[in-house]
Amino acid sequence: MNTVLSPDELEKQLRAIGAARYHNHHPFHKLLHSGDLNIDQVRAWALNRYCYQAMIPIKDATLMARMHDAELRRVWRQRIIDHDGEREGDGGIERWLVLTDGLGFSRPYVQSMQAALPATRFAVEAYVHFVGEKPLLEAIASSLTEMFAPGIISERVSGMLAHYDFISEKTLAYFGKRLTQAPRDADFALAYVKEHARTAREQAAVLDALRFKCDVLWAQLDALYHAYVGPGPVAPGAWQPGQEIAATA
Amino acid sequence: MNTVLSPDELEKQLRAIGAARYHNHHPFHKLLHSGDLNIDQVRAWALNRYCYQAMIPIKDATLMARMHDAELRRVWRQRIIDHDGEREGDGGIERWLVLTDGLGFSRPYVQSMQAALPATRFAVEAYVHFVGEKPLLEAIASSLTEMFAPGIISERVSGMLAHYDFISEKTLAYFGKRLTQAPRDADFALAYVKEHARTAREQAAVLDALRFKCDVLWAQLDALYHAYVGPGPVAPGAWQPGQEIAATA
Repeated sequence: MNTVLSPDELEKQLRAIGAARYHNHHPFHKLLHSGDLNIDQVRAWALNRYCYQAMIPIKDATLMARMHDAELRRVWRQRIIDHDGEREGDGGIERWLVLTDGLGFSRPYVQSMQAALPATRFAVEAYVHFVGEKPLLEAIASSLTEMFAPGIISERVSGMLAHYDFISEKTLAYFGKRLTQAPRDADFALAYVKEHARTAREQAAVLDALRFKCDVLWAQLDALYHAYVGPGPVAPGAWQPGQEIAATA
Repeated sequence: MNTVLSPDELEKQLRAIGAARYHNHHPFHKLLHSGDLNIDQVRAWALNRYCYQAMIPIKDATLMARMHDAELRRVWRQRIIDHDGEREGDGGIERWLVLTDGLGFSRPYVQSMQAALPATRFAVEAYVHFVGEKPLLEAIASSLTEMFAPGIISERVSGMLAHYDFISEKTLAYFGKRLTQAPRDADFALAYVKEHARTAREQAAVLDALRFKCDVLWAQLDALYHAYVGPGPVAPGAWQPGQEIAATA
């Protein structure tokens, strides 16, 4: 990795990382959209993935805190608005809670995150720390998994609606919004990375940042698979199927 | 958790957490010491666990950086000396590398940590961040898994020596040292916690810190089990059995 890539060659290599390592290739995703999970396994997914959703605005605020350019911050803050909403009852996190509501969890139980798998929390925290500690270019590049989001979202939504009678368009409303938000965010971040990653070292770091982020997503599905598909057991302290799902309500 | 516990009652509750959540109960540990793993699965364990070993002095330096009492730092620095040694070729990290040497890995490959599972890196980083971000009392309490180390080490060493012809007393030298170091460290940390956790809130936080640390250890074995016992697959980019084990030597 000693030659400087053209911006388009860099994009090509970024897309190749997604093609090889994005979590649409994970067995858990395949089970989820094929209708091969039971309601408790879908519950476990929604409960754990909440931790990821809830940390996205914290991740973006951490990132924005390192931007010294008001123009860049003005663009980036839209991500926080999308997740937190304009008012109570609005935004991506709220829409995720509509999903966990629909699966029978109480909101305080979900929001406490105490029942999530440790590996979920560690992966999500690793993402927040990454954007706080790495150079801004790499922190921005780590968001580029959004380039691959529309494909997995379409597959997930159509598959889940077709196969699960406990899932409805209303409970999957989160993903409908993301179909327009993710490409807008990805286009901006990709253009930024292509413009600013000019040395071979910067380009290698940008590619590594995307690999890291793919790892963050992959590790979450590994943990779900191990705990809730098999062979387990579920890590001590995490939600157990059959356990009162609104325990701390 | 609103009543203040006596120091001895606090110790009892700490020991109960270990009895329920320490990773000696994990199926991967049972397979390891019973001789039911193949050499590649033992390699995966040693390769991944290196990341944990390598971060221990960084964890302890992070913790010491927050101690304003020279007496406390004088005690705590022994942990760094134990892991880093008095000179090149000495210390706990070196002894762990003797194990990975014996399993056929090149040192640069192990030391790069690039072939570790993402979940391993995330769990280890979570531990370092925990001791940097939480109150000092909780940071110290997170080390208390050492209270339970002698049992698991004895089981591991005797089982591995009995069952694996690719393991010798020399390659397990790391654990011999830990049998005396861990209780000394644990005794100090336990006395510190019993003396300083005086409010119900502090005591609850101390108990949570130990639960967190048990999660850090447990999540590493979950990830090893999923990737290398089954069903997998191994996360993209991590070491694959059969792969040239000294690839980047």
